[in-house]
Amino acid sequence: MPEFEVTPWEVKGKVDYDKLIQEFGTKRITPELKEEIRKLAGELHVLLRRDVFFSHRDLDLVLQDHKAGKGFFLYTGRGPSRGMHIGHLIPFIFTKWLQDVFKVNVYIEVTDDEKFLQKAGYTLEETREWAKDNILDIAAVGFDPDRTFIFLDTEYIRNMYPLAVKVAKKLTFNEVRATFGFNESTNIGLLFYPALQIVPTMFEKRRCLIPAGIDQDPYWRLQRDIAESLGYYKTAAIHSKFFPPLSGVEGKMSSSLPEYTIYLTDEPKTVRTKIMKYAFSGGQPTIELHRKYGGNPDIDVSFQYLYMFFEPDDQKIKKIEEEYRSGKLLTGELKEILIEKLNEFLETHRQRREEAKSLVDKYMYDGELAREMWRKIHE
Amino acid sequence: MPEFEVTPWEVKGKVDYDKLIQEFGTKRITPELKEEIRKLAGELHVLLRRDVFFSHRDLDLVLQDHKAGKGFFLYTGRGPSRGMHIGHLIPFIFTKWLQDVFKVNVYIEVTDDEKFLQKAGYTLEETREWAKDNILDIAAVGFDPDRTFIFLDTEYIRNMYPLAVKVAKKLTFNEVRATFGFNESTNIGLLFYPALQIVPTMFEKRRCLIPAGIDQDPYWRLQRDIAESLGYYKTAAIHSKFFPPLSGVEGKMSSSLPEYTIYLTDEPKTVRTKIMKYAFSGGQPTIELHRKYGGNPDIDVSFQYLYMFFEPDDQKIKKIEEEYRSGKLLTGELKEILIEKLNEFLETHRQRREEAKSLVDKYMYDGELAREMWRKIHE
Repeated sequence: MPEFEVTPWEVKGKVDYDKLIQEFGTKRITPELKEEIRKLAGELHVLLRRDVFFSHRDLDLVLQDHKAGKGFFLYTGRGPSRGMHIGHLIPFIFTKWLQDVFKVNVYIEVTDDEKFLQKAGYTLEETREWAKDNILDIAAVGFDPDRTFIFLDTEYIRNMYPLAVKVAKKLTFNEVRATFGFNESTNIGLLFYPALQIVPTMFEKRRCLIPAGIDQDPYWRLQRDIAESLGYYKTAAIHSKFFPPLSGVEGKMSSSLPEYTIYLTDEPKTVRTKIMKYAFSGGQPTIELHRKYGGNPDIDVSFQYLYMFFEPDDQKIKKIEEEYRSGKLLTGELKEILIEKLNEFLETHRQRREEAKSLVDKYMYDGELAREMWRKIHE
Repeated sequence: MPEFEVTPWEVKGKVDYDKLIQEFGTKRITPELKEEIRKLAGELHVLLRRDVFFSHRDLDLVLQDHKAGKGFFLYTGRGPSRGMHIGHLIPFIFTKWLQDVFKVNVYIEVTDDEKFLQKAGYTLEETREWAKDNILDIAAVGFDPDRTFIFLDTEYIRNMYPLAVKVAKKLTFNEVRATFGFNESTNIGLLFYPALQIVPTMFEKRRCLIPAGIDQDPYWRLQRDIAESLGYYKTAAIHSKFFPPLSGVEGKMSSSLPEYTIYLTDEPKTVRTKIMKYAFSGGQPTIELHRKYGGNPDIDVSFQYLYMFFEPDDQKIKKIEEEYRSGKLLTGELKEILIEKLNEFLETHRQRREEAKSLVDKYMYDGELAREMWRKIHE
């Protein structure tokens, strides 16, 4: 049995990201590459500084294209679920940062079809309901309304299908089976679906950069095998690590395990209860032992959340780490820091979500890019 | 090796239709059933009288529904090709007759996607070009412009896709492999396609009757396995035999063998040359032997064409058969009869095709049914 497993549908075990880079054949984001981004961007997003986005394909070429004035575009997506959690939102926040910095178009595919096809118990009506709800959360992130197109697969299919069949003709059952772990009992909708996840990488005749979890990389491998034969660029990608569940730094946060998940709708009290009760601690069993031996931030989920995203101040996070490791900072105190940060973040998000209601139409139908996209048939 | 083979993509060998009925599990159209149609229709179309449409599923239930006032609808289709031949047109002529008789809606799916996905050498641009051309030929048949909807898969996909994924979720690779003879190297577009051929059987919440070649029956078998679980009727079907190529009564007429095929665009001189030169004859090698032993109409392609469709007068065809069998009618004379009939038919068709140009928009977008269908999302 492998110690960990990563597919677009499941992440199990303690992921060895170096091994994943090797297996997938991607590249680590080097200090040099980060420095180049910093120069172009003026700063480095916390998710880059802390190596949450840690791996890439052709990111160097994207920057080259940018500097040469050729431009590029961003593409990411969302498999709708009943309520999004904090781990879901983070790649969007990063994508928005990239959009702000590079002033480029963002395409966001909401895969109501795939989610329905993948889970025996789901109805298409459900996944579309969730999609609408999730789109509000995505809209709350604050993308540029005239440079962002959010679309539902089942709605935008007419514009994508001609190119999708061209992509599909180049992919055999053998290939998708090997890439995604499909088998002979996989339904034919799911077998076809990879074509639809690949099409948006060809929305423009420029290089596409995809910020997404590294579990999605199999799609981009397939894309890179066939893109040039269709007259498009091999897509670039920038891969993130998985946001861990409260239960520990294994697997990834998942909507299907509510107690180990912080939903975007969780009330302050719920957040407090979940963190206090379930957040796996790297601290010692007693205060005395903790003072004596200190805590281990590497396995402490609260620390990891702060480190990955919720405490972007490098000085502060360093201090927290040192004090936790030395035993000065207790687990309860560490959790309090996280709870405050989380609730602040969620509060702001929910306000923005309310305000974003009027923006959804722009992203989906009426904004400058959206209008252009509804006129375009991709083929 | 089997003596004959029938799949939606290929017909090989001398087809034993009784065996096919058994293998496919369909039913022969009995004299009683024909009589019932005759009573309802007032007459019996030549294609029914001569058993070109010879097999069915649930045709009895369709008639029952009709008599009970529940109604039904017709659905057939066309995989576009570079130029249609006479064998292609015949099912449409029969479908139009059914529409006239029963005053029902007709849906015609033009599968530009499937044709592209199925043949390595074709481009989607080609199959769509052919589709437009083929649609003119179909329009020339004279369907009711307010009760007929002709659509291209790549254009109408947005309206079909939600229901298509519901269908697709119920079909596994194993099932489509077994049904269509797919394999591990089949592309994922073609694997998904059966869902799109099934969807139109669910365009109305009434029974669907499909007039089509029996080679298409595998789709209907799959449909019948899953339709009720989605809240629709098992489709009914009425199956035709294959229109043979000029080379003999084996296989089916195919656009890929031009010399054995009568295209709808063939000039009178071309028709004459092809029939004289290539139409397989059941006659004797010399006039003397022919006068003595007579010809064999059962293997004579010219006679078969007249019998299947081009000489609808029962008295006349009987006389031709007798005289050919007795040796009174020579092969050359028989061929002359066919040439005249064919050229008359093609001449009329081409006139109608010219006149139909203005109708295409009605069938596809502007007619009463078309407008209704563009408003409808099937799910």
